[in-house]
Amino acid sequence: MADDPRLTPHANALPATVPFVGPEAQERAMGRGFVARLGANESVFGPSPKAIEAMAQAAKEVWQYGDSQSHDLRAALSDHLGVPMQNILIGSGIDGLLNSLVRLTVTQGTPVVTSKGAYPTFNYHVAGYGGVLHEVPFTGDHEDPERLIVKAREVGARLIYLSNPDNPMGTWHDAATIQQMIDNVPDGALLVIDEAYLEFAPDGTAPPLDPTDRRVIRMRTFSKAYGMAGARVGYAIGDTGMIAAFHKVRDHFGIGRISQAGALAALADRDWLVHVRAETAAARTRIAGIAEANGLAALPSATNFVAVDCGADGALARALVRELAEDGVFVRMPFVAPQDRAIRITCGTGADLDHLARVLPGALARARRL
Amino acid sequence: MADDPRLTPHANALPATVPFVGPEAQERAMGRGFVARLGANESVFGPSPKAIEAMAQAAKEVWQYGDSQSHDLRAALSDHLGVPMQNILIGSGIDGLLNSLVRLTVTQGTPVVTSKGAYPTFNYHVAGYGGVLHEVPFTGDHEDPERLIVKAREVGARLIYLSNPDNPMGTWHDAATIQQMIDNVPDGALLVIDEAYLEFAPDGTAPPLDPTDRRVIRMRTFSKAYGMAGARVGYAIGDTGMIAAFHKVRDHFGIGRISQAGALAALADRDWLVHVRAETAAARTRIAGIAEANGLAALPSATNFVAVDCGADGALARALVRELAEDGVFVRMPFVAPQDRAIRITCGTGADLDHLARVLPGALARARRL
Repeated sequence: MADDPRLTPHANALPATVPFVGPEAQERAMGRGFVARLGANESVFGPSPKAIEAMAQAAKEVWQYGDSQSHDLRAALSDHLGVPMQNILIGSGIDGLLNSLVRLTVTQGTPVVTSKGAYPTFNYHVAGYGGVLHEVPFTGDHEDPERLIVKAREVGARLIYLSNPDNPMGTWHDAATIQQMIDNVPDGALLVIDEAYLEFAPDGTAPPLDPTDRRVIRMRTFSKAYGMAGARVGYAIGDTGMIAAFHKVRDHFGIGRISQAGALAALADRDWLVHVRAETAAARTRIAGIAEANGLAALPSATNFVAVDCGADGALARALVRELAEDGVFVRMPFVAPQDRAIRITCGTGADLDHLARVLPGALARARRL
Repeated sequence: MADDPRLTPHANALPATVPFVGPEAQERAMGRGFVARLGANESVFGPSPKAIEAMAQAAKEVWQYGDSQSHDLRAALSDHLGVPMQNILIGSGIDGLLNSLVRLTVTQGTPVVTSKGAYPTFNYHVAGYGGVLHEVPFTGDHEDPERLIVKAREVGARLIYLSNPDNPMGTWHDAATIQQMIDNVPDGALLVIDEAYLEFAPDGTAPPLDPTDRRVIRMRTFSKAYGMAGARVGYAIGDTGMIAAFHKVRDHFGIGRISQAGALAALADRDWLVHVRAETAAARTRIAGIAEANGLAALPSATNFVAVDCGADGALARALVRELAEDGVFVRMPFVAPQDRAIRITCGTGADLDHLARVLPGALARARRL
């Protein structure tokens, strides 16, 4: 197709890719709804009832823009994390924060390092600003801090991406390993650690926050353990200079009033988080049991999802994802080999997992026949 | 300050400017709250009660990401506007849409044309992507379509910005004038018409939507007449190619579930919009009366705010904005001469305007003494 003269050369060259197709789009294509929505790592246990109430109250005031400084939420996070307010940035989910981060650090040709098969939305933003992505393989279903650092040195990367715990495999590294990675970040590079699933992980997964450390920016979210994916609230913790840079490009009134109120109430309800963690852990165990009953192996997980090794290649896993969709179960799977031998199942409610247990044997049998 | 080696050269060079300081930030600085919040052109009459109810219900489902295609909202807008769904894009307010639009069309050195004193957030995004802004003056407190087109031809602009009705003066052009401007857009340029306030304007302000016209993209919002500034939902109407380009860079899951549900319900409640329009028109008349009682002249307005000419220069208007803040009234004012002889007062509730009427004489007297 001829270039559109209204667009920048880079915009013309960008592919029309979408990192994830949403479940609603799949439902519209199928002409019916999913019975069990277990593909987007949403927290089926929902947000704190106090957060729901805060959002319902805030809906009445939604004629007002949200506070452009998200002051109260940052103050609460500052207390909670023990980090000064000026080192905390609120963004429109980690996706929105990654967009701004890549915009600030990557231009045409900038080398960036990530793991092959890690978060595709990060890759989407890197491509979106013209960066050149260098990927290193997972090692034993884990992102590999050492190889990431070696590759970053080799290519002179400006930005290095790591998720801990990891998506899509659910694996994790301990704090000492991550701290060592931070200590080895090459001069002039920045390590972004996506900690979207941290609240589900064992204690000792994350090294201490150090907002004076200019080698790393950490990102967390209210979308996962806090059960607020549809409210779009994430936050970054970084050094003062890096956070100040975000303020030069961010949409200052972009964090809505209802979202801020909900996140503030969700953060305060520690009991609910304990409840969600327990429900999630129980669901992980149950998913592993369902997998085992079908001769499949669940990987250990520090997240709210379980990667289930289907014991063959990507073709079988892809067929199983399709067959499960036929049976009303929405799941996703890793995009690249060898991780794509697995399907990724989000922790569901009891009813969700009853349904999964019921349909998995048939779906698996059909997938194997294909 | 030395450049930060982690940032792009452009990010390093960007100034640390913020287009607008929010009222909450001002309140924190003052140590007390405003009595009348009349500075951000929010709709004090609120959203439809049906939208509030829809948002409260959606809060319970906020553990789910919003539909990444905003299908139902686009379908409803398609019906409402008589425009195919593929020509409608949902964004995080017009601010978010402008960010993406500038990203797609502007790169280092790209010429862009706007009016001197028009929407500063547009200018912020242009600077944010390295564009070079060319400004033409207002003519008689109106943005000047002819001069904008002449300047665009002169500098070879890629992007031209016009708001109709206009912010910050509240003036407007009729549909024929705007259609003529569209017809004169130079080849390869794109006119963005910001119609944030259109629902307040007289019939015949906007030319018909023509999604086959590649010379123009129109932007509208649920932030103003629909009373949902804090939900961040705007939309763009453009040709298929331009809308497709947005999908290459947008945050696909960026429009939250509560926001989509609220906008859908708000759009359906036409009676509420009629009510808000009537309340707004009455408030405009009352503000004009309050101005007149103080010897000031209100400009005619097709928006939910009134520019009040203070009869002197920017110094008096700036002093008056400060003095009104002292008396608990939040208002803003145009940034540049000669429009900065005015202050800009958002249509308030009866109580808001009672308070304004009470404190304006004193504030004006103090401002004149300064």
